[in-house]
Amino acid sequence: MNALNVSEPLPLFDLNAWTTRQLARVEQALSGWVALSSDAPVANGVRGLETAMRYAVLDGGKRLRPLLVLAACEAVNGDQRAALRAACAVELIHAYSLVHDDMPCMDNDVLRRGKPTVHVRFGQAPALLAGDALQALAFEILTPEGEGIAPATQARLCRLLAQAAGYQGMAGGQAIDLASVGLPLTSPELHNMHRLKTGALLQASVMMGAACGSVSPQVEDALKHYGAAVGLAFQVVDDVLDVTADSATLGKTAGKDAAQDKPTFVSLLGLQAAQDYAHQLLAQALNSVSSIASLETQGLPRTAALQALARLLVQRTH
Amino acid sequence: MNALNVSEPLPLFDLNAWTTRQLARVEQALSGWVALSSDAPVANGVRGLETAMRYAVLDGGKRLRPLLVLAACEAVNGDQRAALRAACAVELIHAYSLVHDDMPCMDNDVLRRGKPTVHVRFGQAPALLAGDALQALAFEILTPEGEGIAPATQARLCRLLAQAAGYQGMAGGQAIDLASVGLPLTSPELHNMHRLKTGALLQASVMMGAACGSVSPQVEDALKHYGAAVGLAFQVVDDVLDVTADSATLGKTAGKDAAQDKPTFVSLLGLQAAQDYAHQLLAQALNSVSSIASLETQGLPRTAALQALARLLVQRTH
Repeated sequence: MNALNVSEPLPLFDLNAWTTRQLARVEQALSGWVALSSDAPVANGVRGLETAMRYAVLDGGKRLRPLLVLAACEAVNGDQRAALRAACAVELIHAYSLVHDDMPCMDNDVLRRGKPTVHVRFGQAPALLAGDALQALAFEILTPEGEGIAPATQARLCRLLAQAAGYQGMAGGQAIDLASVGLPLTSPELHNMHRLKTGALLQASVMMGAACGSVSPQVEDALKHYGAAVGLAFQVVDDVLDVTADSATLGKTAGKDAAQDKPTFVSLLGLQAAQDYAHQLLAQALNSVSSIASLETQGLPRTAALQALARLLVQRTH
Repeated sequence: MNALNVSEPLPLFDLNAWTTRQLARVEQALSGWVALSSDAPVANGVRGLETAMRYAVLDGGKRLRPLLVLAACEAVNGDQRAALRAACAVELIHAYSLVHDDMPCMDNDVLRRGKPTVHVRFGQAPALLAGDALQALAFEILTPEGEGIAPATQARLCRLLAQAAGYQGMAGGQAIDLASVGLPLTSPELHNMHRLKTGALLQASVMMGAACGSVSPQVEDALKHYGAAVGLAFQVVDDVLDVTADSATLGKTAGKDAAQDKPTFVSLLGLQAAQDYAHQLLAQALNSVSSIASLETQGLPRTAALQALARLLVQRTH
C-alpha cells in the first residue's frame, strides 16, 4: 500500500517482513501439531484436553523463542524443517510452563495474553493435564519418523530442550523463584534464578537453531554467549515493564512482582540502572554475533535476524 | 546359604533372582540421575526441588515398567546400557504422573507407596514443579552425549516415550478418567480410557526395551501384543485389588474407585468376571511371547523374564 520512496536508502534487514513470514510458518505448524483429532474424548460437550492445549498455545504470545530458533538456524544455514519443529517444541514448553505457572498453587493469575488463564477457562485438573501433555508433545514433535531429519539432530534437540526445561533449567529456576518471595536476593542469586527460569529456555532456543546446522566450536560459543545475553536482557526488560507498563499493554497483570514482594532487577538496581543494564546486555549480544557476521547471504549477514531480534527484545513495550 | 536339593527339578527361571539383580541396577541408576547436586537451591533449609524429585522417585514402587523394559531388551538381546536408561526414563514419567495425579485438583490423595504424597510433604507448588522436572529429566536421560548409544536409538526411545505419555497416551487417558467420574462408561469406553491411561506407558515400556535391539517386524508385532495384553491386565487387576485388598497391603488408599464412583472393570463386569478376564489377558500375553520364545540363551528362552513378569502381574496382591 505504501509506495516506497526510492530516494531513501533501502533498509538493510526488514524484521517485520521476516517475522511475518516466520510466524506464518510457526502458527500453521503449531495448529497442525496441537491438533483436535476426530476421536478426541468429548466431555460435557467439549473435547477437553486437546481444546485446553490449543487454547494454551494458539492465538497468542510473541513467539520470541520460535523466532530465536529460526533466526539461529538461518545464521548457521541449517535444516529449516528441523528448525520449524524445534521452534514449535520450544514454544510448547514455554506454553506449558505458563499454564502451570498461572495455577492457583503457583502464581494464581487469571489473565494471560489478554485472555482468562487456562485453569480459569477449563478448570485446574484439565490445566494441569494440558500442561503435562504439551511437554510430552514437544518431545514428540522433535522426533518424527521418516521425515529425513537426522537422528543425531533429533537426539541433540531433545537433549538441549530437556536440559533447559528441567531441574537445572526452567523448573529449577521456578523453584528458586517460589522460594524467594519476600526474601532479599543478592545480585548473583537473582542472576542465577533468571539464568535458569527464563534464560535457559531462551538460550536453548538459540542453541537448538544452531543444532539444525553444523557449526564450528567458535560459532557455537558465540551463539551461546548471544543466547545468554539475550536471555538475561529479556528478564531485565520484563522487570522494567512490570513497573512501567499497564496490564492492557502487557496482556497480563502488571505490577505483579511488586505486589507479591518478589525480588526483581528493578528492586535490586533501581529503574534507570535496570534500563541501562538491558542496553549493556544488548551490546554484548550484538558483539557476540558480530564475530560470526562474516557469513553472508544475499548481501545481508546471515545473523541479521538474530541482531534485529535482540534489538526488538530490549526495545519492546510489552 | 540354602543347599540346593539336586533331586528336585531346577527351576526354569528364577524371577526373584532376576528381579533383585535388575532392581539393584535400576535403583542405583535412578539415585544417580535424580541427584542432589551440591549447588541446588536451598530454601527453608532444604534443597526443595531436587529433594521433592528424589522423594517422588526413590524408595518405593514395584518398578514394573523398568522391569518390562529390561525384560523386553533381554528378549531381543538388545543394548543393556540403553535399556537401563529407558527403564529409568519410563519410571520417571510414571513417578511424575503419580505426583500430579495425587494433587488436590486431581485425585486429592494423601497416601502413596505407604508415605505421604509429595504435595502433602512439600506443598502443592513444589509438587507441581517436581513432576514437571521429572518429565523433562526422562528425556534428558534418554539422550546422553558421548555414551555410544546410537542416535537413532535415542530418537526412537524419545518418540515412543513422548507418544505414550502425551495426549494420545497417559495424559489423554487421565483426562477421560477425570471427565468420566460418575458417568456410566460402556465397555469400549472403559477399555479405551485404560488403554491410554495406564496401558500406553506399559506397552511403551515393552516397545522401548525392544527398541534397544534390532528386531523383525514379526517380533515387534508380537511384543506389541504382549504389551497391550499386559497393560490391560494390569488395570483389571488394579480394579480387582481396589475392592479386595486393604490400604496397608496396597500402600495406597483402597476402595477409592468405588468411593469416587469411578467406573472400573469390577463395576462393569462384576468381581469374578473381572478376575477371569485378567487370566484371559495373561494367556494372550503368554501366547504372543511364545511365538518368539525360540530365541534361546543358556538353555532358557530369552523371553523367560517377560513370561514370568506377566504371571507376576496378574497374580500380585498389591
